[in-house]
Amino acid sequence: MRFSKTFVKTLREAPKDETAKNGALLTRAGYIHKEMAGVYDFLPLGLKVIENIKTIIREELNKLGCEEILMSSLQNPEPWEKTGRFSDQEVDIWFKTELASGGVLGLAPTHEEPITELLKSYVSSYRDLPLYVYQFQTKFRNELRAKSGILRGREFLMKDLYSLHTSEEDLDRFYAEVEKAYERIFERLGIGDCTFETFASGGIFAKYSHEFQTFLPVGEDTVYYNADKSVVLNKEVLDEEVMADLGVKREDLQETTAAEVGNIFKLKFKYSEPLGLNYIDEENAQKTVYMGCYGIGVSRLMGVIAEKFADEKGLVWPETVAPFKYYLVGIGENGIRTAEEFYTGRETEIFFDDRNLRPGEKFADSELMGLPYRIVISDKTLTEDAAELTNRQTGETRLIKLTEL
Amino acid sequence: MRFSKTFVKTLREAPKDETAKNGALLTRAGYIHKEMAGVYDFLPLGLKVIENIKTIIREELNKLGCEEILMSSLQNPEPWEKTGRFSDQEVDIWFKTELASGGVLGLAPTHEEPITELLKSYVSSYRDLPLYVYQFQTKFRNELRAKSGILRGREFLMKDLYSLHTSEEDLDRFYAEVEKAYERIFERLGIGDCTFETFASGGIFAKYSHEFQTFLPVGEDTVYYNADKSVVLNKEVLDEEVMADLGVKREDLQETTAAEVGNIFKLKFKYSEPLGLNYIDEENAQKTVYMGCYGIGVSRLMGVIAEKFADEKGLVWPETVAPFKYYLVGIGENGIRTAEEFYTGRETEIFFDDRNLRPGEKFADSELMGLPYRIVISDKTLTEDAAELTNRQTGETRLIKLTEL
Repeated sequence: MRFSKTFVKTLREAPKDETAKNGALLTRAGYIHKEMAGVYDFLPLGLKVIENIKTIIREELNKLGCEEILMSSLQNPEPWEKTGRFSDQEVDIWFKTELASGGVLGLAPTHEEPITELLKSYVSSYRDLPLYVYQFQTKFRNELRAKSGILRGREFLMKDLYSLHTSEEDLDRFYAEVEKAYERIFERLGIGDCTFETFASGGIFAKYSHEFQTFLPVGEDTVYYNADKSVVLNKEVLDEEVMADLGVKREDLQETTAAEVGNIFKLKFKYSEPLGLNYIDEENAQKTVYMGCYGIGVSRLMGVIAEKFADEKGLVWPETVAPFKYYLVGIGENGIRTAEEFYTGRETEIFFDDRNLRPGEKFADSELMGLPYRIVISDKTLTEDAAELTNRQTGETRLIKLTEL
Repeated sequence: MRFSKTFVKTLREAPKDETAKNGALLTRAGYIHKEMAGVYDFLPLGLKVIENIKTIIREELNKLGCEEILMSSLQNPEPWEKTGRFSDQEVDIWFKTELASGGVLGLAPTHEEPITELLKSYVSSYRDLPLYVYQFQTKFRNELRAKSGILRGREFLMKDLYSLHTSEEDLDRFYAEVEKAYERIFERLGIGDCTFETFASGGIFAKYSHEFQTFLPVGEDTVYYNADKSVVLNKEVLDEEVMADLGVKREDLQETTAAEVGNIFKLKFKYSEPLGLNYIDEENAQKTVYMGCYGIGVSRLMGVIAEKFADEKGLVWPETVAPFKYYLVGIGENGIRTAEEFYTGRETEIFFDDRNLRPGEKFADSELMGLPYRIVISDKTLTEDAAELTNRQTGETRLIKLTEL
């Protein structure tokens, strides 16, 4: 992609009300645009980051045999009323709207009820189970405050996966597979070493659920962890019984803030029972389906990764997430001509700053935008048939032969 | 993909309130699931069809230098109030909702106002123009009635493209390029020979706009066309002046119903003026930006294609749109084993009906689901080292050597 051909420019300033670092940097670097607090547009580079994150998640879930679908945002109240969750007292972040032909609708904040209802059309026998269905879908949550950039959205992109089983053992088996898949996903996204599976409140049907928490100064959660981080728990479950369960002592635990990037939950009969998602077992008896649900905040992840790696110069993307791997600059007549030649045929890997600007301005933008490597081809480097390759994260620069690039 | 591994089953019956052929067939064949009138979920095969349509549109638009973004559904009233379009009298299909922190929001039925507002951050000089931005985005329209399956959605997927220019000539130039791109898109989608550029009402700023109408018995529009279909016009502009303009006589025009699958519109200053989208020209004077907008109904297209080609046995997908090219059935011990071998390594092209059912049931499902070709490998075909290849559209069957498949 050529810088001269995109409508996006880097901006000197973020909107005045943008107090979050991720929001301010992503706006200045041209990845997102703020519509209102908690509601953002994704510009071409930002959409590429989102798609890269989705691709990694999709690949890992497909390996488990999960199937992708896309459900609606508009929600019929009926299945939600059966579980009591259409009530604003029960779920206090609903956006609701009215149908011209009469009746109230909700905008989905999550999809347990409608997926349970949908699957009633397809599940009747034990032979239909287990099954695993997920989607990348826009969720709506009517947050009273939304000041964390894309870390907490009123409209945001989420991956939600639902699993159905005939037994608790099979739910446990798949739950463990998802735990491993999540670890691979966060590893591939570049935040494996700062993201930890965390014990959290399990609700009525399970003692614990698990969150995946990325340690982050601006994270909204408080978690406790032991020395080797083999045990991490959310503040909400920090009590004597839980510490005894997990074999840790209060004095061995440290506190930190973290951002929840994923969660996994054994729902068991929580939705299948009130909504009547049943199957006929081998003995011809009607049984209730066991369910699990597994979320990942896709747009939040983009914000977490931005916050986590940014330095005083701007964004720093891991290679797997970056919209382009290389930021290319030509200096001087020969440098520019050689850069043009080098760019040709490599348009999907290289973001080519072909603007008629001074090198210093291009360097500043390359640092703000945070692509993993900068390639500079100048008359000087060409005397050695080489280019200067700079690692955005480490700042290391070295000459590399053009033929080796 | 293996039939045994997807949670979806074909259904004997569509929901009782599903009166539209596209809705009923797509539901029975396992492509969509109805949430409520005008609101559908896309199941794995349906999502593949949607993605195939998006890919074709994306490829053709990217060739024109268009850039993809993704805007929000939640809409701040402010820019809409400047054009008068937040009013329910002016735009009568708004879904509106309330923010917990106070204030009314809309759910975007289209995006002219927010894109114009957004681009004010990026356009200041004639050097920034022209520019072309598009998205695939979920639109919400509060239709009083929605009985046409996915032909008219309350929630639906649309591609909307916006172009910005410094002159009417440049707008005209790009408009003509989009006309050609749309022709290529509909051609590639398999409906090129029944989809026509149609004169429609232009609104205040242009005498005509153009729609792309697919002739279809259940289409909601009425259009008139001459013998060689070189002139097609919407009923809404059928008057003496227009016929004189287009050089046609009433007695030479035939009437038919059609479904609008795309529209293109010279907006000129309609949104840029009230919203203040200006630029500085070569002489340092402030000028208003010329705009065009160009829509394609992505989920509607899926419905139109389903309606257009379906026969009494079920769906018939064009190759470019089909979720898989081949439907594979093995019959008999050797046939099944050979089918398994043949399937291996071709998982993305072949939908393999590996269920433990009678061949007749598999054949019926293959016809209902409408993949372009059915491959049957049986003990009988294997005596000639061949498979039976059936064209879904023509019904033609021939033996083909396995090595040639």
